[in-house]
Amino acid sequence: MGMRVGVIGGGQLARMMIAPAVELGVELRVLAEDEGMAASLAATSVGDYRDADTVLEFAKDVDVITFDHEHVPQPVLRALVDAGVAVHPGPDALQFAQDKLVMRRRLAELGAPQPDWAAVESQEDLKAFLDDHGGRAVVKTPRGGYDGKGVRVVSDAAAAADWFEAVEGPLLVEELVPFTRELAQQVARRPGGEVVAYAVVETVQRDGVCAEVIAPAPRASEKLMEVAARIGVTIAEGLGVTGMLAVELFETPDERILVNELAMRPHNSGHWTQDGSVTSQFEQHLRAVLDLPLGATDPLADWAVMVNILGGPKDAGLTDRFAAAMSQHPTAKIHTYGKDPRPGRKVGHVNTLGDDLDDVAYEARAAADFFA
Amino acid sequence: MGMRVGVIGGGQLARMMIAPAVELGVELRVLAEDEGMAASLAATSVGDYRDADTVLEFAKDVDVITFDHEHVPQPVLRALVDAGVAVHPGPDALQFAQDKLVMRRRLAELGAPQPDWAAVESQEDLKAFLDDHGGRAVVKTPRGGYDGKGVRVVSDAAAAADWFEAVEGPLLVEELVPFTRELAQQVARRPGGEVVAYAVVETVQRDGVCAEVIAPAPRASEKLMEVAARIGVTIAEGLGVTGMLAVELFETPDERILVNELAMRPHNSGHWTQDGSVTSQFEQHLRAVLDLPLGATDPLADWAVMVNILGGPKDAGLTDRFAAAMSQHPTAKIHTYGKDPRPGRKVGHVNTLGDDLDDVAYEARAAADFFA
Repeated sequence: MGMRVGVIGGGQLARMMIAPAVELGVELRVLAEDEGMAASLAATSVGDYRDADTVLEFAKDVDVITFDHEHVPQPVLRALVDAGVAVHPGPDALQFAQDKLVMRRRLAELGAPQPDWAAVESQEDLKAFLDDHGGRAVVKTPRGGYDGKGVRVVSDAAAAADWFEAVEGPLLVEELVPFTRELAQQVARRPGGEVVAYAVVETVQRDGVCAEVIAPAPRASEKLMEVAARIGVTIAEGLGVTGMLAVELFETPDERILVNELAMRPHNSGHWTQDGSVTSQFEQHLRAVLDLPLGATDPLADWAVMVNILGGPKDAGLTDRFAAAMSQHPTAKIHTYGKDPRPGRKVGHVNTLGDDLDDVAYEARAAADFFA
Repeated sequence: MGMRVGVIGGGQLARMMIAPAVELGVELRVLAEDEGMAASLAATSVGDYRDADTVLEFAKDVDVITFDHEHVPQPVLRALVDAGVAVHPGPDALQFAQDKLVMRRRLAELGAPQPDWAAVESQEDLKAFLDDHGGRAVVKTPRGGYDGKGVRVVSDAAAAADWFEAVEGPLLVEELVPFTRELAQQVARRPGGEVVAYAVVETVQRDGVCAEVIAPAPRASEKLMEVAARIGVTIAEGLGVTGMLAVELFETPDERILVNELAMRPHNSGHWTQDGSVTSQFEQHLRAVLDLPLGATDPLADWAVMVNILGGPKDAGLTDRFAAAMSQHPTAKIHTYGKDPRPGRKVGHVNTLGDDLDDVAYEARAAADFFA
C-alpha cells in the first residue's frame, strides 16, 4: 500500500489533515470545490465532486480516497469502487451517514439505543406521532442536513407541510428527547478490523452548532464511558465504517444515552485531540484509511477544552487579534481555517489542556473571545 | 504585520514549520535549493540562496524572512536588510552562528562559560595550545562545519596541516573538555524583546551526530536548569538573536556547563517539543519571527524522548516499516522528512512521552529501530 491519500472536499477537515500528513510522510492530495479553500495548500485539483469523471480522474494518482464531508453521491462512490479504487469510508457505510432514515433503520437492527422515531409520509402520520409523544417532536429531512439545517422542532403537523411538499419520500420524525446534555463518542476503525475508541466528550451546542467540547465528559461514570465506547464500536463495526466515526449522543435524566447523529469523518467534537491526545483524530483518520495500525487514544492531560471561533471578528481578520489573544493566553492553541469571517461560520477553534477544568475552560473561552 | 513567512532553505526544519503554519494560518513560503526537497509542499521558489537577486525576488511576497539553515552569505543578508525586508534572525546575529571564532570572542565578552579556546594561525600556535592543554585539543574550521564536519580532535599540530593550507584566516582550537554529558538549552526571542526558555535537555551524540534527546535532562538540579536557562537568555539577548536559539553545552564532572555550539533556528535538540511541549519549537519560531507573543514552553509529560532515524532502511522506504513500528508502538510519534534513505542521513525521528523515563526511552528507541 502506498501513502497517497486523496481527500474529496477542501474544507477545514481536509486542511487539518495536512499537519499529520506532512509529519507522517503521507502525500495528501485534495479535490477542492473552489480555489482558495481552507485546504488549498494541499489542493491538487479543483472540481465538482458530484461529477464521476472528475472524481475518477482525481483518484488515478492516489492509493485511497477519503472525504472532508459525506456529500459525494452514491453513484460517484460506486463508480470509484467499480474502477478498483480503495474508498474509505466506502459507499455501503456512507449511505448511513447520507440518509438518516436508513441510519435509524440500521441502528434499530443493531440494537443501538435511539430516540423513538418513525418514517412519516404525510401530515396525518406526523400528527399520529405527535399525539403519541406529548405533542412535540423533531422533524428531519433524511438527506442533506448539517449543523442544525434540515432539523425542525414542531408541535403541529402543518409546520412540516413545506417539507412534505418539497422532499421526495418520507420525512424522519423523532421524539424530542428530554436530554440533560449532549455527548459525542469517537472511534476509528481500519479496513482490517482494528478499532480504537476515544474518551466520550460533552458537546455544548448553540443555535444548533457545536460551540464547545469538554474532554472527557465531566462527571462521566466509568459505566457511562464504557457504554458510550461500546455504542461507538458497535456502530463502526455494524455499519462497516472505516476511518473516524463520531456518534453524537443525548444523555437523559435517567442516565441513558441515545444516538442522535453520525459523522463518518473527523468531527468538530474531536478537534481537542489535536493538542489533547497522543493521536489526533486527523492523524488517526489517515492511519485508518491507509489501513495502518491505529495510534493510542490516551489523553495528554486530565482535561481538554475546545471552543469554536464562530463568525470571527467583524472589523478585521482573525490574525489581527493574534497578538492580544496570545499575549493573554500563552497556553492556548489557536487553530484557524483560512476562511473569511461571516456570521455563524466556523473559522477556527482554540484548544486548552490542564488538570483543573475551570481553569482550562476559562482559558479556552477567554482566548476564543478575542476573535469574536 | 502580515502573516507571510518566507523560509530560505527547503530542508526538514522548514518542512516541520508547515504543520504549525497551517494551524495558525501563517502563509509559509519556502525558497528551496532544489525540487523535491523535504519542505517541497510549501516551496514556492527554487533557487540559489547565495544569489542576492534570487533572494530579493523571493522576499518580495513575504512579511519576514527566516531560515532553515545559517548558510546565507552576509552580503545577501545585508542586501535584504537594505531593501527594507524584515530578517529574523538578522545578519548581526547570524554572523555569530556563521563564524565560530567570532562567536567565541563575543561569548567571552558576555562572560558566558566556554572551554579554553584560541585563534591559531599556524602549526606553531596550535602546538603551543596543545602543550598548554595536555597534548590534545579540538580544532575547528571557523566556518562551514555542521554535524561533526569541520571538527577534528588532534594530538599533533601536523594533523591540522591541510586545514592551515586550505582555510583562509586562523583556525579555532578548543580544549578537549572532559565532559560527562552534552546538554542543550533552547530559548526563543522576539524582536520586541520577549524571551522564553525551554527546559534544558540531554543530547546523546553518535559519530558527531545527534542520536537521542531526553527532556528534561535527567538528574538536572534546579540550579543547573536555572544556570542553563540564564546562559541561553544571556546569549539570545547579547547576540540579538530573534527566533529560536539552541545552545549546545558540555556538562563537566565538577558540574559546570560550557558552551559548545550555537544554532539560530529550530534545532534537532528541540524536536521533542513537537509532541512534548505546549508550544513546539517550530510554532515558537514562527511566532518569534512574526514578533507575536511567545507560547508557553511547559512540557506535556514528565519525560519526553526523541530518537533520530539515521540512514533509514537499506532495502525499502521508511513508510514500508510503518505498519510494524506502529503496531508495536501505538504511543510513538513518527516524523519523516520525505528524504531518500542514505547512510548517516537524518531521515526522520520518533518522539515519545510519559512518566517513566525507562519506558519512554525504550518505546522511542524500539520504534526507531524499525526504520534502521
